[in-house]
Amino acid sequence: MPEFLTLVTPGEALEILFNVLNPEVKSEIVQTEQALGRVATEDILSPQDLPDFKRSTVDGYAVLAKDTHGAGETLPAYLMIKDEVPMGDEPDFSLASQECALIHTGGMLPRDADAVVMVEDTQILESGEVEVFRAVAKGENVIEVGEDISAGDIVIPKGTRLRPAEIGGLMALGFTAVSTAIPPVIGILSSGDEIVSPSQKTKPGEVRDINSYTLAALIEDLGGDVVHYGIIADSRDEMLKALEKAQQECDHLIVTAGSSASTRDLTAEIMNTLGDPGVLVHGISIKPGKPTIFAVSGEKVMIGLPGNPVSALVIAIVLVSPIIEAYLGIRGSRPKPALSAELTVNISSQTGREDWIPVRVIRTPEGSFHAEPVFGRSNLIFILARSDGLIRIPASATGLEAGTLVTVRLI
Amino acid sequence: MPEFLTLVTPGEALEILFNVLNPEVKSEIVQTEQALGRVATEDILSPQDLPDFKRSTVDGYAVLAKDTHGAGETLPAYLMIKDEVPMGDEPDFSLASQECALIHTGGMLPRDADAVVMVEDTQILESGEVEVFRAVAKGENVIEVGEDISAGDIVIPKGTRLRPAEIGGLMALGFTAVSTAIPPVIGILSSGDEIVSPSQKTKPGEVRDINSYTLAALIEDLGGDVVHYGIIADSRDEMLKALEKAQQECDHLIVTAGSSASTRDLTAEIMNTLGDPGVLVHGISIKPGKPTIFAVSGEKVMIGLPGNPVSALVIAIVLVSPIIEAYLGIRGSRPKPALSAELTVNISSQTGREDWIPVRVIRTPEGSFHAEPVFGRSNLIFILARSDGLIRIPASATGLEAGTLVTVRLI
Repeated sequence: MPEFLTLVTPGEALEILFNVLNPEVKSEIVQTEQALGRVATEDILSPQDLPDFKRSTVDGYAVLAKDTHGAGETLPAYLMIKDEVPMGDEPDFSLASQECALIHTGGMLPRDADAVVMVEDTQILESGEVEVFRAVAKGENVIEVGEDISAGDIVIPKGTRLRPAEIGGLMALGFTAVSTAIPPVIGILSSGDEIVSPSQKTKPGEVRDINSYTLAALIEDLGGDVVHYGIIADSRDEMLKALEKAQQECDHLIVTAGSSASTRDLTAEIMNTLGDPGVLVHGISIKPGKPTIFAVSGEKVMIGLPGNPVSALVIAIVLVSPIIEAYLGIRGSRPKPALSAELTVNISSQTGREDWIPVRVIRTPEGSFHAEPVFGRSNLIFILARSDGLIRIPASATGLEAGTLVTVRLI
Repeated sequence: MPEFLTLVTPGEALEILFNVLNPEVKSEIVQTEQALGRVATEDILSPQDLPDFKRSTVDGYAVLAKDTHGAGETLPAYLMIKDEVPMGDEPDFSLASQECALIHTGGMLPRDADAVVMVEDTQILESGEVEVFRAVAKGENVIEVGEDISAGDIVIPKGTRLRPAEIGGLMALGFTAVSTAIPPVIGILSSGDEIVSPSQKTKPGEVRDINSYTLAALIEDLGGDVVHYGIIADSRDEMLKALEKAQQECDHLIVTAGSSASTRDLTAEIMNTLGDPGVLVHGISIKPGKPTIFAVSGEKVMIGLPGNPVSALVIAIVLVSPIIEAYLGIRGSRPKPALSAELTVNISSQTGREDWIPVRVIRTPEGSFHAEPVFGRSNLIFILARSDGLIRIPASATGLEAGTLVTVRLI
């Protein structure tokens, strides 16, 4: 299959791929403390009401609301202090009319109390009585049982990536372990006779492997596991052997092809022999990253990325991330880290092709942001190292004008 | 020191704190492969030119540019193919006038070649000659030595957090290990007689510890290390003992105080005895999080956060993050994810106080974003779990109107 017979759009490429896939998410139980960034594989239901007791939201006095009716600055109500509510315990007393109890924020209301007067609205007298200068309504300064969460409520939906807030939510309900997606295992191979290991001194004509490491970092950040297969020589036999081994040992594969068209064709050809349906996409109308390959064998996705480090990383961010997320079972994905900024210069682009441009973000004295393209001729990885993010020029546009508000996808 | 004697603004609070601190960053060498998210502690200078040989940027024929001058569709130039440039090696031949060499993208130009003709602009003849249909200028389709990076250039400045692109950049230069900041060690203590461990069944009046875990998750995400000291009883002796131990063992401390004012005062009082200059800030004009405490003993920062889980996490995001980042040596911090979104409802706020409101972000069919506040009465952690980010209402405002374009800080 010679390359670029038919270019598809980035959206079509993912659609073609997901049409033949049925991502199944395997789950494992992990300690909630270790679960940051993991993805919940089940709806998490609250086993209890929250709060599960009537709590005060302020420091003050628990009262019967009706005892305060009519009270004001000039005509205070007078209540007897019955006791103090202990923190972390159930009060062992109830309130009768004209009685009150000292209570702290978070404390449990005594039986028959139905409101709390804030300490600021009271004054304590030598007699042991409390003057109340403000009437409270029933339920005022009180959270009722189940007001936040009722037993049975879905508090964290299946497919949610756990952030610090979700970790806290699980702990609040006593879930010290949680069922999360097993990270998909991604095999990474670099091909190209000019590629050597970063630990090697280069001879003229050689360059060091970058893609294996940028892609591994990105995939681990997304929640996948990586197995490195190193650098494969540009020969049919070597590449076939390496891909077969990696395919057996991993859930999915990423091959960064050598720079030349013939190497990319070889990659596609070999992927096509590794199982059905084989190569589904070969060439995407996107820049950088046109020579991207999507192939599938059974439920194993094989991705061929351009050897150019900028192309490889941009395609990984834009098109490989959704594949990893599908195998993590992520649903209703939260907005990606992004920032809105004003473009500083005109950028032209070719209609019919989606462009992703690296930009630096500059904060203006007014607190808004400017996006300044980082141009460079050779697509060196340092172009991305100098950038804060990427902006997208849709296929329908012929470019973007200076002053346009763009969304910068932070990288 | 009774609480809230003088409220300061969030900006003032950080300024007061950093005025007495001299954050010193300790560094350690880590493998570049393991360095994602770590912070470089030295300027990283390129030891070499990049590229360090003259490379082709296309598939085609290396030529002497002058041999193609005047060539066109109707009057092609004819060049003899001398040889093919091997990938990953120095060509062992040079070009004479009227000669060319087959070259692949990334290949090294033979001696005396100074341009590359794209394969699309050529045709090969049976005679072994190549017809060239387009003239190329000297340097066309070639990257010169050092065009991307010159030896001695700063490629990654000190204080940069390493992303996948920086990992790749290091590898490109052969840096398989890198000097990074040793994570500051943060001790976390929860106080409050009503607080129990998440693994415990709660009795009436008790609630589970949330803050230790949300804060730990956030701090680890930022690049700090956490030591847990568990739940401390609300007594002077217990708290003093626990804080002294934690202070000895850690670089900095965070104590989430119990809910009541008296507990918060106790926390401040004890922090004041733990070294000079003691409590610097007690009460910040921010909501949520007014009862925040900043204290310092020598170079150890002690932070008292409100017991309320939403307050504690919001303050950690807004005000503790910059402290951790300072001790990681982060400079020229990259922009935080901040989406511009249209507020869906009016929000009122109190002048003189900075408000942070949790919001859900909704993508409109047009691709812009709406920010919908997530209100809730009791500041339960699930309010943040349901939110995508926070919006800030500045102290000078009395609120924000529906339709206002706001910046959502994603959490």
